[in-house]
Amino acid sequence: MGIILIGERINGSFKDVGRAIQEKAVDVIRERACKQAKAGAHYLDVNMGAASRDVQDYAWLVKTVAESTHLPLSLDCNKTEHFKVGLETYREVAGDRPVLINSTTAEDSKLGPLLEMAVKYDASVLGVVMDERGSPQDVDRRVELGAKIFGAALEAGIPQDRIILDPIVMPVKFMQDQPKNVLAAIQQLTMLSDPPPHISIGLSNVASKTEERKLINRTFMVMAMAMGLDCAILDVSDADLMASVLTAELLMNKEIYSDGYLKSYQKNIGLAPEA
Amino acid sequence: MGIILIGERINGSFKDVGRAIQEKAVDVIRERACKQAKAGAHYLDVNMGAASRDVQDYAWLVKTVAESTHLPLSLDCNKTEHFKVGLETYREVAGDRPVLINSTTAEDSKLGPLLEMAVKYDASVLGVVMDERGSPQDVDRRVELGAKIFGAALEAGIPQDRIILDPIVMPVKFMQDQPKNVLAAIQQLTMLSDPPPHISIGLSNVASKTEERKLINRTFMVMAMAMGLDCAILDVSDADLMASVLTAELLMNKEIYSDGYLKSYQKNIGLAPEA
Repeated sequence: MGIILIGERINGSFKDVGRAIQEKAVDVIRERACKQAKAGAHYLDVNMGAASRDVQDYAWLVKTVAESTHLPLSLDCNKTEHFKVGLETYREVAGDRPVLINSTTAEDSKLGPLLEMAVKYDASVLGVVMDERGSPQDVDRRVELGAKIFGAALEAGIPQDRIILDPIVMPVKFMQDQPKNVLAAIQQLTMLSDPPPHISIGLSNVASKTEERKLINRTFMVMAMAMGLDCAILDVSDADLMASVLTAELLMNKEIYSDGYLKSYQKNIGLAPEA
Repeated sequence: MGIILIGERINGSFKDVGRAIQEKAVDVIRERACKQAKAGAHYLDVNMGAASRDVQDYAWLVKTVAESTHLPLSLDCNKTEHFKVGLETYREVAGDRPVLINSTTAEDSKLGPLLEMAVKYDASVLGVVMDERGSPQDVDRRVELGAKIFGAALEAGIPQDRIILDPIVMPVKFMQDQPKNVLAAIQQLTMLSDPPPHISIGLSNVASKTEERKLINRTFMVMAMAMGLDCAILDVSDADLMASVLTAELLMNKEIYSDGYLKSYQKNIGLAPEA
């Protein structure tokens, strides 16, 4: 697929992963990593959540995930120190395999150092459209902050293909005006350049605390793809979501149609065709 | 829902309906009409397909459908004569109930008389973006013809709320570059005015002759809704499609979110909640 799918499952906020980080359970992490690779992930996100703040734990997690599959990683943390140690570890283990810094914001104190790090370690960088003032709710400010990150990254010498912008998805349950604003922001962010910059979302946030989680996730995902989204952090093991994403790729003319497109894909990723 | 859903099922191209038209089987037609009303249709499309070209058969069909439910009808034919007799019959049977002329094209020889008829019978009008040269495949020409129809309808004195534009959906299987162009055309047609004109598609055409018909239909539908679609002719009895449409309405902030939104809706239209 043309779209970049980042598997969300290596995250310490999930109980099993949190415990595995604390207990250094290599097998648990490896199993989660392999399962996502098989399900069609292009990147694996690596996030400790609240399971640990220890930078050595992060180094261990990055090493364990990197050694589990040949997929590139998305290093998902807040602190510059964690990124630094994560990138050092990754380069030792994974050589010149691609890697993503996930994420910087538009805050100068964060953006500068992380862009420098992206250049030093030859990494892609994902920028979320927030700054000192927090996460904007309106479309214009999202686009403004996206433009700031995009411009700064290009100026720092990062090739456009390695810059990804994230307009910040908020839960439909608690902020019902926000999903629509995110869709509009995606569309406007595509106009920052030609070809457009990569645009990503943390999908699962849209359906947070809802009862129809999977239906809301897959519906918002294809709506966002219609607007120009070409990357997402999501649950690659959700078979209905992946079928929707693949179908949206066909409809955007980014995958070649064949009658058996869905079954071929499901067979490739080890899923049985639907009954 | 804010979106206008036109039930596609009273169409002579379906074998059971075709036979019912030829045999004047009121019960069959009534059952199809009631089923769509219960499933949540806002309008019922009335199309003879190839079952008959007889204008009296059309009058019978319009009368039968109009008497079956209290829903407004979408009179779906090609010939001016059929529209005239259909509208006369409808006004006799249904009084001042709303009605839709489906459809005119941008051809002057058709557009003029049908707009005149819309004014005379107080009808809404759906204009498909084609003309003497056929159906355009590019975005610009779709928008140009849409603008022509929109302008002519306003000038004829039809209120904007009664004008619907259709950018013409083509099958992904045979013209894979077209669904994307339709999405772009929808978005550009929304910019013709503020508030935007109504935009509709004949949804089922996108998945014509495919194996994953329902998946393709519901995926394209919500993508189109993200672009600004607010009307469609579709299969209202497809429960997964209706769940997707309702979810897209929530995500566009056009329906109020509640945890039980899907189950309430399914209960309202007589569908059991999903297992």
